[in-house]
Amino acid sequence: MAGPAKSKTVEDVLHERAEEVRCALDEALRPPRARPQRGPTTEQGQGGRLNVDGSTAAAASLYEAMRYMALGGGKKLRPALVLLASEACGGSADAAMPAACAVEMVHIYSLIHDDLPAMDNDDLRHGRPSCHKAFGEAMAILAGDTLLTEAFTLLATGVRDAAVCRRLVEELASAAGAEGMAGGQVADLAAERQGLRDARLLEEIHRRKTARLIEASVVMGAISADASDARERSLREYGTHLGLAFQVADDILDAVGETEVLGKTAGKDAAAGKLTFVSLFGLEAARERARGEADRAVDALVPFGREADRLREVARFVVERTF
Amino acid sequence: MAGPAKSKTVEDVLHERAEEVRCALDEALRPPRARPQRGPTTEQGQGGRLNVDGSTAAAASLYEAMRYMALGGGKKLRPALVLLASEACGGSADAAMPAACAVEMVHIYSLIHDDLPAMDNDDLRHGRPSCHKAFGEAMAILAGDTLLTEAFTLLATGVRDAAVCRRLVEELASAAGAEGMAGGQVADLAAERQGLRDARLLEEIHRRKTARLIEASVVMGAISADASDARERSLREYGTHLGLAFQVADDILDAVGETEVLGKTAGKDAAAGKLTFVSLFGLEAARERARGEADRAVDALVPFGREADRLREVARFVVERTF
Repeated sequence: MAGPAKSKTVEDVLHERAEEVRCALDEALRPPRARPQRGPTTEQGQGGRLNVDGSTAAAASLYEAMRYMALGGGKKLRPALVLLASEACGGSADAAMPAACAVEMVHIYSLIHDDLPAMDNDDLRHGRPSCHKAFGEAMAILAGDTLLTEAFTLLATGVRDAAVCRRLVEELASAAGAEGMAGGQVADLAAERQGLRDARLLEEIHRRKTARLIEASVVMGAISADASDARERSLREYGTHLGLAFQVADDILDAVGETEVLGKTAGKDAAAGKLTFVSLFGLEAARERARGEADRAVDALVPFGREADRLREVARFVVERTF
Repeated sequence: MAGPAKSKTVEDVLHERAEEVRCALDEALRPPRARPQRGPTTEQGQGGRLNVDGSTAAAASLYEAMRYMALGGGKKLRPALVLLASEACGGSADAAMPAACAVEMVHIYSLIHDDLPAMDNDDLRHGRPSCHKAFGEAMAILAGDTLLTEAFTLLATGVRDAAVCRRLVEELASAAGAEGMAGGQVADLAAERQGLRDARLLEEIHRRKTARLIEASVVMGAISADASDARERSLREYGTHLGLAFQVADDILDAVGETEVLGKTAGKDAAAGKLTFVSLFGLEAARERARGEADRAVDALVPFGREADRLREVARFVVERTF
């Protein structure tokens, strides 16, 4: 992959990286029989594992549901961040791609489960019926579960160095787990159902539910590129602030955007009485906060030279986007 | 941990190992504030991660739901198998415990999600209200998601050797993923809803949904003990047959057992018109098949001497148990 030419906008670059990720995910989420054979297979399969012949039919719908969600839409911002952070540290796209795909699979799993009737109950995602609307609730639960699981298969099988693999697994699992995304969703649901309106709680929810995985994306790019501790720390700080900027911008878009452009139901947060930066502080204060977080993200990149320019542009872009 | 004394029955040994696992899980599933401090913490936390102070309150219910399911009951057969397989290969209990806990967390996640109304819709588990009955559907979905996620955190943080960690992650994720447990549940739901009655499909469902994770438990014990490839292969074969024996025995128990003793709703499979060994072949043929699989499990242990006697006893026990 060639470095980005000067004339390309940050949107072009994000779009390019998103396409690369989409191709890699298309490969990673193929049923085993559809994958190119990599050697002789026996009735018993590798190392005595399950024979996949004959079972692919029954599981085909599971792959279909995962592919519908993972390939069918979305900006692929998180995996693009993995790739851009790796580039800023001099890493190769090939080395960073397993981490990029794994982060996106975890993100997509969270969207599928968040949309479920028992959770946020949303019928629309990426401009199409959400996973449970298209495939039913049971399949949506299982497609989410499987994407989460296979993200770790991908790290274990796709990352060359075992120590790097271990650090990636730890970063991704802790970002997605009780102290990260899942814990954030619990807090978010509790806040909504109890009608809580507390600035500190809002901060916590946004940090855990959104910012932590965006932070992890950037950090996993650094880990994949075997970056120094100092660079990784800078990128972590960049990622945290970028994640907050992104979420505040998302709150703003939900308040002012249109369903058609967003590809998900607009105005839903307000209708649900959700705790958002806009509902708590108003539109102007939210805009100021988003810009402030983007500034702090850029400030965190001081140890980097021009090689981090794309990441700086992403921070600006995230708060200026309209979709 | 001392080796098992001759006078102990296999039930005693399984019970002991289950208790050790329960203690380790109790530690692993504590909210961060309740864990013993292991060094100075700052406002910003380690490496700029989220500050956990103040957020523990909102997420406390998530830990409560996970602990209710992971500590509240169950035989803990899978993690006991990790420990016994590791012992048979000369490994230490300490080295195998992260893998044991991780396998149990994945098993418990699958129970929580399988019990959901959109899936098997079961109100009873381990003799108590199932997770969604006790905590609501949203929390049950998230508690399952989090147990699955944190299983990988545990492997990444608890296993000393990075290469061993990577192999454990791969084994667990592939056993739980599209070609394993999750794919098996998809096939099981499809068979139930379409009223399919096909021996090959039944075999596939049992292999994927149950046998694969039991196989992985035994193999993860071998990996944790850094066993030779030959020993690992023998143990994988043992695990596959043990898993099938276990599932056929489970079908038999569902048909003849009592709800009170089982701790889950008995006769549910028949009532739901489920595809089971008993419904397809009858009780006697199922009993014969279970004994046959136990025999093949024991046969697979030929390369082992007395050090695998407990595993041999487990194979017999699994088909003779009444709960």
